[in-house]
Amino acid sequence: MPVENITEKAVTSDALDILFRQARTHISWLDKPVPDDVLRQIYDLMKWGPTSANCSPARILFLRTREAKERLRPALSPNNVEKTMQAPVTAILAYDLKFYEHLPRLFPNNPAARGWFSDSPQLAEATAFRNGSLQGGYFILAARGLGLDCGPMSGFDNAKVDQEFFPPTVKSNFLCNLGYGDPAKLFPRNPRLEFDEACQLL
Amino acid sequence: MPVENITEKAVTSDALDILFRQARTHISWLDKPVPDDVLRQIYDLMKWGPTSANCSPARILFLRTREAKERLRPALSPNNVEKTMQAPVTAILAYDLKFYEHLPRLFPNNPAARGWFSDSPQLAEATAFRNGSLQGGYFILAARGLGLDCGPMSGFDNAKVDQEFFPPTVKSNFLCNLGYGDPAKLFPRNPRLEFDEACQLL
Repeated sequence: MPVENITEKAVTSDALDILFRQARTHISWLDKPVPDDVLRQIYDLMKWGPTSANCSPARILFLRTREAKERLRPALSPNNVEKTMQAPVTAILAYDLKFYEHLPRLFPNNPAARGWFSDSPQLAEATAFRNGSLQGGYFILAARGLGLDCGPMSGFDNAKVDQEFFPPTVKSNFLCNLGYGDPAKLFPRNPRLEFDEACQLL
Repeated sequence: MPVENITEKAVTSDALDILFRQARTHISWLDKPVPDDVLRQIYDLMKWGPTSANCSPARILFLRTREAKERLRPALSPNNVEKTMQAPVTAILAYDLKFYEHLPRLFPNNPAARGWFSDSPQLAEATAFRNGSLQGGYFILAARGLGLDCGPMSGFDNAKVDQEFFPPTVKSNFLCNLGYGDPAKLFPRNPRLEFDEACQLL
C-alpha cells in the first residue's frame, strides 16, 4: 500500500457518529424484532478484534425467547427487569476460564502458549476477564455498526446467572440488551471526563 | 425517528472492513508520525462508549518521546521491545481504582453511586478492570476508525509499569502501539472460533 494512501483507511465522520458520538444506551425498545442473522453478523465482526495470543475468551448467550428471559429474570436488579423483558434480545456476555484449550488451534505461533495459562489459574482468570471485556467493547460497537442499539448492564447477580446458564468454568461478565431503541425515552446524556483528566501526553 | 428509517444508522461495509474484517495487529511501523491531535481525537471518540454508571475508569498515557519509551523499556517482554521502540506512539491503558470520586459529576442520576464502590474495594476493582477493558476495546476501534493501526500487547511487567508511571490507585491494563503499520511485515492471520463454538441462541 503506497504511503500516500494510508489515510484512506479512516472511516467517515458519519460512521464515527453512529458508533460513538451519537450512540446512546437505550432503555426502551421499538416493536421491531432482531433477526437471528443479525446476531450472527455481530459475532462475525467482533471475532476479528484483537485479543492476547488470539485467546478469544468471550462466550455469548443470546436470549430471544420468553422462556430464556424468564430464566434470567430472578438475577436482575429490580430497575433492570422491565427494560430487559421488553428488549427483543438480551445477550449474556461471559468468558471461558478454560479458553486456553483452544490455543493450539487459535495461536499455533507458539505451542507453549497453552501452558502459560493452564499452569496459572490466576493468569488465566485475569486474561479471560481482560480480553473477554475487550471483546465486549467490540461486541457493542459491532452491534451499533449493524444499526442496532445497545443497553449494556452490570446490575445483576452474577452468581445466579452463572448457576442458571453456565458450567463452572464459564463466568458471566455483563448483560447487553439489543434492539432498536426508542429515542423519545432517552435521558439527557451524562458528561465525560476531559482529555486532561483521563490522559497524559509523555 | 420514523421506524422505517431506523436502519439508516448502520455504517457501511467499508467501515466494517476497516474496523474489523481487514484490520490487523501490526508489528512494524512506517516512518510516519502520529500528530498529538489524532491522539486527542481517539479519546474524544472512545469517551462516549458506555460504562457502568458512566464510571469511565480508563486512564491513558501516550508515550511519544524517546525519554518516555526508555522508561517503559525495562518492563517489556523481550519480544515486545523492538516493535514498541519503533512505534510512533505507545499507549499505556490503565484504570483508576478510585474512579468513584468522579461519580457525583459523571452520574448525577443517583447520588448513592459513589458509596457502592467506595464501600467495597473488591467491587471497585472488578468494575474498574471490566469497564477499563471495555474502554480499551473502544480505544482500539476509535484509533482504527481514525485511520491508525494498533498493536495491543499484554506481554509486559504490570508491577514495573505501575511503579514507574502511576500512583498506587492506578493500575496498568495493557499496552497499545499506535501508528501506520507496514502491511508487508504482517504474519498470516490466525483463525477465530466459529459462531457455534462461542455463542448460543436461546
